[in-house]
Amino acid sequence: MPERRKICVVVGSRANYARIKTALQAIRDHPDLELQLIVAASALLERFGRSIDVIEADGFTPDATIHLIIEGESPATMAKSTGLGLMELSTAFEALEPDVVVTVADRFETMATAVAAAYMNIPVAHTQGGEVSGSIDESVRHAVTKLSHLHFPATELSRRRVVAMGEDPSMVFNVGCPSIDLVAQADLGEPDQALREFAGRYGVGAPIDPAKPYILMMQHPVTTEFGQGLDQINRTLEAVAAIGMQALVFWPNVDAGSEHVAKGIRVFRELGRANDFHFFQNLPAELFARLMAHCRCMVGNSSSALREGAFLGTPAVTVGTRQQNRERGPNVTEADHHVGDIADAIRSQLEHGAYAPEPLFGDGTAGRQIAETLARVRPVVQKELHYGAGALRGVEEAPEPVGSEHPRW
Amino acid sequence: MPERRKICVVVGSRANYARIKTALQAIRDHPDLELQLIVAASALLERFGRSIDVIEADGFTPDATIHLIIEGESPATMAKSTGLGLMELSTAFEALEPDVVVTVADRFETMATAVAAAYMNIPVAHTQGGEVSGSIDESVRHAVTKLSHLHFPATELSRRRVVAMGEDPSMVFNVGCPSIDLVAQADLGEPDQALREFAGRYGVGAPIDPAKPYILMMQHPVTTEFGQGLDQINRTLEAVAAIGMQALVFWPNVDAGSEHVAKGIRVFRELGRANDFHFFQNLPAELFARLMAHCRCMVGNSSSALREGAFLGTPAVTVGTRQQNRERGPNVTEADHHVGDIADAIRSQLEHGAYAPEPLFGDGTAGRQIAETLARVRPVVQKELHYGAGALRGVEEAPEPVGSEHPRW
Amino acid sequence: MPERRKICVVVGSRANYARIKTALQAIRDHPDLELQLIVAASALLERFGRSIDVIEADGFTPDATIHLIIEGESPATMAKSTGLGLMELSTAFEALEPDVVVTVADRFETMATAVAAAYMNIPVAHTQGGEVSGSIDESVRHAVTKLSHLHFPATELSRRRVVAMGEDPSMVFNVGCPSIDLVAQADLGEPDQALREFAGRYGVGAPIDPAKPYILMMQHPVTTEFGQGLDQINRTLEAVAAIGMQALVFWPNVDAGSEHVAKGIRVFRELGRANDFHFFQNLPAELFARLMAHCRCMVGNSSSALREGAFLGTPAVTVGTRQQNRERGPNVTEADHHVGDIADAIRSQLEHGAYAPEPLFGDGTAGRQIAETLARVRPVVQKELHYGAGALRGVEEAPEPVGSEHPRW
Amino acid sequence: MPERRKICVVVGSRANYARIKTALQAIRDHPDLELQLIVAASALLERFGRSIDVIEADGFTPDATIHLIIEGESPATMAKSTGLGLMELSTAFEALEPDVVVTVADRFETMATAVAAAYMNIPVAHTQGGEVSGSIDESVRHAVTKLSHLHFPATELSRRRVVAMGEDPSMVFNVGCPSIDLVAQADLGEPDQALREFAGRYGVGAPIDPAKPYILMMQHPVTTEFGQGLDQINRTLEAVAAIGMQALVFWPNVDAGSEHVAKGIRVFRELGRANDFHFFQNLPAELFARLMAHCRCMVGNSSSALREGAFLGTPAVTVGTRQQNRERGPNVTEADHHVGDIADAIRSQLEHGAYAPEPLFGDGTAGRQIAETLARVRPVVQKELHYGAGALRGVEEAPEPVGSEHPRW
Repeated sequence: MPERRKICVVVGSRANYARIKTALQAIRDHPDLELQLIVAASALLERFGRSIDVIEADGFTPDATIHLIIEGESPATMAKSTGLGLMELSTAFEALEPDVVVTVADRFETMATAVAAAYMNIPVAHTQGGEVSGSIDESVRHAVTKLSHLHFPATELSRRRVVAMGEDPSMVFNVGCPSIDLVAQADLGEPDQALREFAGRYGVGAPIDPAKPYILMMQHPVTTEFGQGLDQINRTLEAVAAIGMQALVFWPNVDAGSEHVAKGIRVFRELGRANDFHFFQNLPAELFARLMAHCRCMVGNSSSALREGAFLGTPAVTVGTRQQNRERGPNVTEADHHVGDIADAIRSQLEHGAYAPEPLFGDGTAGRQIAETLARVRPVVQKELHYGAGALRGVEEAPEPVGSEHPRW
Repeated sequence: MPERRKICVVVGSRANYARIKTALQAIRDHPDLELQLIVAASALLERFGRSIDVIEADGFTPDATIHLIIEGESPATMAKSTGLGLMELSTAFEALEPDVVVTVADRFETMATAVAAAYMNIPVAHTQGGEVSGSIDESVRHAVTKLSHLHFPATELSRRRVVAMGEDPSMVFNVGCPSIDLVAQADLGEPDQALREFAGRYGVGAPIDPAKPYILMMQHPVTTEFGQGLDQINRTLEAVAAIGMQALVFWPNVDAGSEHVAKGIRVFRELGRANDFHFFQNLPAELFARLMAHCRCMVGNSSSALREGAFLGTPAVTVGTRQQNRERGPNVTEADHHVGDIADAIRSQLEHGAYAPEPLFGDGTAGRQIAETLARVRPVVQKELHYGAGALRGVEEAPEPVGSEHPRW
Repeated sequence: MPERRKICVVVGSRANYARIKTALQAIRDHPDLELQLIVAASALLERFGRSIDVIEADGFTPDATIHLIIEGESPATMAKSTGLGLMELSTAFEALEPDVVVTVADRFETMATAVAAAYMNIPVAHTQGGEVSGSIDESVRHAVTKLSHLHFPATELSRRRVVAMGEDPSMVFNVGCPSIDLVAQADLGEPDQALREFAGRYGVGAPIDPAKPYILMMQHPVTTEFGQGLDQINRTLEAVAAIGMQALVFWPNVDAGSEHVAKGIRVFRELGRANDFHFFQNLPAELFARLMAHCRCMVGNSSSALREGAFLGTPAVTVGTRQQNRERGPNVTEADHHVGDIADAIRSQLEHGAYAPEPLFGDGTAGRQIAETLARVRPVVQKELHYGAGALRGVEEAPEPVGSEHPRW
Repeated sequence: MPERRKICVVVGSRANYARIKTALQAIRDHPDLELQLIVAASALLERFGRSIDVIEADGFTPDATIHLIIEGESPATMAKSTGLGLMELSTAFEALEPDVVVTVADRFETMATAVAAAYMNIPVAHTQGGEVSGSIDESVRHAVTKLSHLHFPATELSRRRVVAMGEDPSMVFNVGCPSIDLVAQADLGEPDQALREFAGRYGVGAPIDPAKPYILMMQHPVTTEFGQGLDQINRTLEAVAAIGMQALVFWPNVDAGSEHVAKGIRVFRELGRANDFHFFQNLPAELFARLMAHCRCMVGNSSSALREGAFLGTPAVTVGTRQQNRERGPNVTEADHHVGDIADAIRSQLEHGAYAPEPLFGDGTAGRQIAETLARVRPVVQKELHYGAGALRGVEEAPEPVGSEHPRW
């Protein structure tokens, strides 16, 4: 019997766990694969809800846990955390000797994972390549694509973008996003069921009334707009408060500016403004799917509103630039960082109600497809830039750079 | 008077110093720019010839020096060194507060520089983007492109590739390679002059006879073929020895596998096989240009043979995969890692003699163009993937991935 | 005019700032000295009250700020944070080139400072050597003594202990603790004045009534009892709640187990048990002195209760082992981690009321003495173990180790 | 059956391997103990002879290997390497979960090991505590004592010093040095046998003539005299050359200044001065013992001349301050860094010939005693400074510090 191929997956945050969970299950259950799981970064930290507890409760046993967050939530500490992650992950890869490393999306632990594995001659498989957005995520995602050997973009347009960047088309597979698998498989239950499960078990703040409608709010810092996070969260909080509906509010992720966002929430709460707000850090992914399925509107800048939101038809208001240019279905409305704009957009979505489902990010089979592809396809370590003649011909016709007429610093 | 824009250049190796030196001069001398110089990595180390001594002798004063090499020369220590570089460079960037960071080519300090600056919202300018080659450099180079905001590719084909990868064409400038500037400006002197300057001042081993012809050999490890370096260097040494001409041999760079290559050289020498071989670590760039201009053949896998070599018409034999697919002029012949192949290729080049110059990598104005562009163009921090309709239309027509029929592990 | 001697002081926490502030002032103001200030570790973090804001408000401008906390608050992350501090501090010392480095007390940034400077041949001056206590602090404090060249113990007994450990007596100066200077210089005002200043400006939780008496509570994790922090804080909170007096409660420091203590406080608060509790992270040192001067009882395990508390005559209850064996005046009562014991001890102290002042930890001139000694005394870099004949003669007579009869794992 | 106690030993250099090898064997063979071996630092590096190859050839299988040397051999990189070691070792300790960590002597990996384990609440056992010497080793050794819970000094005087520093006498065991075990157990053979084994198998340079007498030279950098290493090695090389006897010369260890010493050796060799010199990096410990047993004189500053040298009666000349004040037998003569002094001292030793053996550093049972003590004694994690009344009484009578009259910067 041939040895099973060792697939090492690095999970570093609550969001990325939801976006890889069904692949973890499918890898674990595949006869030709052996799952190696590294849990790292904010997924280990109390302040971010210790996703590792959920991961272990789901039946996974980490092969290694890696603390890599250098506290400070500034651009410099984000860079340093990436460096620390690189150092620690290479130690783990040396010990685990994986055949393939899987890295998820566009976070700094994603970058650290891809760089470490690439330098160590371990083929890298990457999910969510080819998407566009704002924040530093946009650059990181594409840089990780260039370090990766096997690509699992989540949409057809993303697949084309990955290939257009020069990746070998035979190594690029549009499988959809595993987060959609979770939603597709979840028993979404009755509208008030999710809240009843939730109430009293998670978070702090005002008590939840399961009989009443609610808004779901999740707003992260935008690293390329570092320093504006306090102001940005304030405006969204004000807008949601103006609606007068109870709201479930996530604490922000660990990116640069996180503490500014968190401070905005803390101050808002201490000022007694948060009478209808309930705050929490982390949830089991299925429960989160139910909350999304039944909320009246999702507000903030999480890509969940665009991904799972499209599939569930969740009315959503996306604030600011963090999701700019990302593919989305009709369920998403955009708003700038103005209280009035945000409140108007929410009201308009409340009026509209649920949207028709839109399978933009997959049909619920992503995890299984990823595992099967990992068992079947064998990338070579030495990458080569791959262009059909068409790609460069297109460029040839592009106008020459001009520069001086269009300063854009 | 407006403040001068602070341009921070990170130089980490002897090779990259030659490839950025004229840009350093032009930035320093530009009225609207202020040069900040960070010298790092192997450029600080005795074992690799302390390029910092040459840099300071050239009149540059580093604003910071950063030790980031974790000794071991293995894939894992290369990854760890990148991580350490990330941590230390972000400290330096915090102190220096540059307006733009310039990163050179495709080394691990290049990667660390680009990641640190990108996370810190500092625009990154990158030289040598869009070239193709072997080794991990191939992946790193393109990943750095995706993290960079301003691009200085060295050839027209490279420019097109950078644009085809989705970079904003108005931020991509084919300026040529500053290493060509050095060669173009150098007083190349008489054939024996370079050797007379060289003899007795640099390196160890057999004495040099300035009156006789010589071979120049420079062979680095190929990181993606880690473990084969000792064997690879042996074959090239054997082939050169078989020619019976005196040879000047560079010690290898600091990449994973460096110690295997170095060991091959040491053993060859201790076995008394190196009677006509002279070994050295580092040279002033102009002296290196003279040695290239007058050598009978350049052997190994340095990209200098393709870059400066094209301009100088130096007959060259490129061994193995490290330069695979890189643009080259007629002066370059390829050989596999077989003693006979290499020796045959050298003999054929000796017979051919010098080639006509070929300005493939620029016309000698790269440094000045880089400085002027840095003074004039203002990149935005928030990058966006940039595609003309053509690019993705080309991809649309690409066949669907097949995978199972073509296993390529 | 001779060059001023550069004295680099590293401050990493709110507690250590209070214990070095008057020395910082005296160094800054001394004609022969130049102050270099590095602010690091938890002193930079929102979660620990950003002491750097207080430091800058006091008129100091840091020469460098160093993020070195790897989040996790576990024994392993405490070790890793020390390692990161070592790496970053040595970068700062290279840039600042101090003549002497001053390190405070016994924290992990203290250890990192001492190791970095000692390896870099920079003489180390250490405050608070020779004290005994519990937690890892006990070992770290004495290890730092062995790496230090100039010692500023705070009591006569501590001075003797430092000398007994083999330090050169001519390099050991009992100067008292600079924290006493602050208290001695502070305008302690009327009992209700401190609370009036405090109320509404700091912290969260129940409003403060300046007219009413209050308890001051500060309890940190004990690293050598990692895992027991949640239970330990609960018992103290229960005991204080049982007294029925309003309480001002500090959040814990950043040591391993911090998150357990913080969680205990959060849960206690969310359960609605904290009706008379007000929580805060950081205060100007003078305001803290006033709060200590007028509180009815100080409860927890901070050494402030023993240091400033002795000088102020503050009734104090020290819970658990963190301060075990530390010198103290009559104002301190000990209690185990039992609700009843703690509550009884508090009640007994409330009944007793204020104690007579006791100048155990100095007379208020420590900062000035430190600066003057730094200007006058010149330690040699090469340390030597220093013993009078007496010391080893005492040991000679000691019974031989027995070991097997007394297992004490 | 009770679980075996896990004893984790960290070995970082060729010297420390010789000083712990018999303890490794005894721990491995003890029924109540389980050996965990971490090989780190220069023991992994080609440039320092890869002691790991010898370790593995001796039958040990490392549980982890840790690259922690940041290349540069400067005071700052030595500090940084300690920091990196701290970070990486804590990762290893988390994975291995040892019951006791054993750390050897006084190197920077020794310091990193002790700090990591102490912060992680793992009892530390330390060998060679209480010795005195020059270099940074002097400070590090005593600092490690203060972080350690169980002490294995190698002499009775060292035992007393460890106790005098305040360590619990019941945890301090004079067991001798395991390096003496090796020498005591070795078959030292005939005078020319060691050279015959050695010749042609190790090192580079002039061929060895087994029939002729030889000098053994080993000189390391002195970190506290950083910058003087090139000059210092030159003088010793000159002096040895002046004797006119063939010499076996070790390359230096990895401490700050190593590259200066190595450069001195390389230049000496390239200048053709080393006609009777043979250079090598690493040897099996038993072969080294034989070379020491039969050399006519040992020259340099290695503590081996004092330790194994005493037991073997090897005539030795110790140059400079690195071994100042260390206990020694009659076999050792001191010399300053003057060519004439060193040469005179060598000639005087050659005339004297072998000395009578002196069991100062043990009787050859150290390794066994260490293992048995580790199996039997159980240190508590929470250390306490431990003084009999005598120790502090002695100090009480010490004169007050004077300071100003005796400046000693």
